Amino acid sequence: MNYRLESLKKHAEWRGKIETKVRVPVDSREALSLAYTPGVAEPCLAIKEDPEKSFELTRRWNTVPVITDGTAVLGLGDIGPEAGMPVMEGKCALFKAYGDVDAFPICIKSKDVDEIVHTVKLISGSFGGINLEDIAAPRCFEIEARLKRELDIPVFHDDQHGTAVVMAAALINAAKVVDKELENLKIVINGAGAAGIAIAKYLLKLGVGDIVLCDKSGAIYKGAEGINPAQAAMAEVTNRRGVKGTLADAMRGADVFIGVSAPGCVSREMVESMAPRAIVFSCANPVPEISRKAALEAGAAVVGTGSSENPNQINNVLVFPGLFRGALDVRAKDINFEMMLAASRAIADYVGDKLSADFILPYAYDKGAHVAVAQAVAVAAAKSGAARR
Amino acid sequence: MNYRLESLKKHAEWRGKIETKVRVPVDSREALSLAYTPGVAEPCLAIKEDPEKSFELTRRWNTVPVITDGTAVLGLGDIGPEAGMPVMEGKCALFKAYGDVDAFPICIKSKDVDEIVHTVKLISGSFGGINLEDIAAPRCFEIEARLKRELDIPVFHDDQHGTAVVMAAALINAAKVVDKELENLKIVINGAGAAGIAIAKYLLKLGVGDIVLCDKSGAIYKGAEGINPAQAAMAEVTNRRGVKGTLADAMRGADVFIGVSAPGCVSREMVESMAPRAIVFSCANPVPEISRKAALEAGAAVVGTGSSENPNQINNVLVFPGLFRGALDVRAKDINFEMMLAASRAIADYVGDKLSADFILPYAYDKGAHVAVAQAVAVAAAKSGAARR
Repeated sequence: MNYRLESLKKHAEWRGKIETKVRVPVDSREALSLAYTPGVAEPCLAIKEDPEKSFELTRRWNTVPVITDGTAVLGLGDIGPEAGMPVMEGKCALFKAYGDVDAFPICIKSKDVDEIVHTVKLISGSFGGINLEDIAAPRCFEIEARLKRELDIPVFHDDQHGTAVVMAAALINAAKVVDKELENLKIVINGAGAAGIAIAKYLLKLGVGDIVLCDKSGAIYKGAEGINPAQAAMAEVTNRRGVKGTLADAMRGADVFIGVSAPGCVSREMVESMAPRAIVFSCANPVPEISRKAALEAGAAVVGTGSSENPNQINNVLVFPGLFRGALDVRAKDINFEMMLAASRAIADYVGDKLSADFILPYAYDKGAHVAVAQAVAVAAAKSGAARR
Repeated sequence: MNYRLESLKKHAEWRGKIETKVRVPVDSREALSLAYTPGVAEPCLAIKEDPEKSFELTRRWNTVPVITDGTAVLGLGDIGPEAGMPVMEGKCALFKAYGDVDAFPICIKSKDVDEIVHTVKLISGSFGGINLEDIAAPRCFEIEARLKRELDIPVFHDDQHGTAVVMAAALINAAKVVDKELENLKIVINGAGAAGIAIAKYLLKLGVGDIVLCDKSGAIYKGAEGINPAQAAMAEVTNRRGVKGTLADAMRGADVFIGVSAPGCVSREMVESMAPRAIVFSCANPVPEISRKAALEAGAAVVGTGSSENPNQINNVLVFPGLFRGALDVRAKDINFEMMLAASRAIADYVGDKLSADFILPYAYDKGAHVAVAQAVAVAAAKSGAARR
């Protein structure tokens, strides 16, 4: 099937992937008196006395906006806020279907950090948490950091951390399949935007020591020219062997290639030059860095892609519904590393005995996986002190 | 029943009156490929080419935020944005139940006109129309006027216009009951905030000539001191007899009293001083200016209140679901006077043969009334040139 053309047809038929549902009776005089006037005055006054009660007397506790400025949508780049809406709506549908989170798309017509931060803060009183989506790097780093600091509800930039969490889950299981130790892996990450940098930071925290981050001009190293401040900061903590040169140079001898970059930028020869039993995660969307077929033919032992059409789809839909479910259930004040790590481990563990080169992650539509993530995250929130109840 | 205490209990049980509902399959590999990646790239690109397509390929066409700053909630005043949420959620539930409009509460933590206008503009790309709610006068006038000018989707401040539309419907039918001509009525409106001023303006357009607008210090007249600019502007076009003095003075000999003011500010004596076959709409919420019982005992021929516990509930829930349904159905660029007038007439006409002193308006939960409003509004939008399709 040509998913893209079929999807366009379906979207025109659907005219929206989510809608509002009424949860209470409003079909009689008495029902209106309770859900609306005059009764509603009393919960209003209760929240006026104690704004925390907005988490008990309204849907706030379970409601998360999926917020974008439309500047880094899928692999399509800066397509504008309205054009990002089909992705945001899709995300909202997945939030509900897999996490029972009431999500709602908000596209913001601005590319200014201050303006985006300010807008989100002004509307945050309606929400239990904030999911940032498809905002371009390096702007996304500052937006997320400031919102995390200034709001007391969980703030999560999915492109960074959702991607890192699922990538780590995939890597934990792929390493088992090829019988290598996580700590000893030589890893090349191509794409030094939001996702690539977040994956590198996350893997460092997981104990992986040898990571080379590349962008279009090749390996990122201390003192490299033409890199942005976020990349310069990464040069300080990655690339301990001081690798310079092209992506092809960096990949020679590597155990793992992680691509969150551009279609077709990896050749068979580059995969052939990797270490034996190589792991290739080729996740550019919708067209990967190298196809699964080509990577396997070039000798890779485990191949993951971003596409649902292949085995081993590495997609953050495995992460965000359960992660927010867990965080919301305990009124977490933050989504911290411990909670994310718990999610990575829960996803990896869920595969269990079925683990093989062609099955390193649960299916995205396996509801049990999302429940496992939610429970692990809630426990980690409690243990790490992020839980409010 | 004590609705307020019972309502508090119910709100604690419900933990939210609306939620998100998924409208499309996302439970298989193939379904995810259509609703999400990789398929979703295609509708995104279609909207990038033509942002208008966001009305066809996402839920935008049917989605309306209920936006408040929490400064004039019910009769409770400035209780803060979070405390306004139970009302906003209730409104969203009614939008959906009676208009099939997907509404969503947004509370904004600001009382600054520029900031509120700017915030709404920045997020407007997610929505098909904007419903402003419970924003205090005179700030609400400028916010609405600027948004109407600067956005190309319908903007509607319900407290002003929803109230005016339903009040006019009630008045049209009450005048029939007491056998008086609309144009000849002497009307006193008490409460010169958002609702009172909007009602006065609307009735002037309907052809009522003799309107005296009062606030706490009595009748508003040309040159009165201590009135705000919005009230001063009204002094120019109302009170043609130059009435000065208290509300009691203004009510002497009046045919109609319309209260959108404060609990208990009208006495039996004041109603007794009105013209024969007087109409009393005592709509302060949750406690009226004078109770229905007292007004009837004082000789009023038709009494309406804001409460669902009495006959003749005058509540804008009869207006906004159908009004937005009609406007959204034709992709109206505005909600203009013609559309509002069509709504008033549709509501009044819907009562039909059942018209009596105790039945001047349809029940709020009569779905047929909302359908009638929607159809009338859509036709009026087309005739007045507001419809885009």
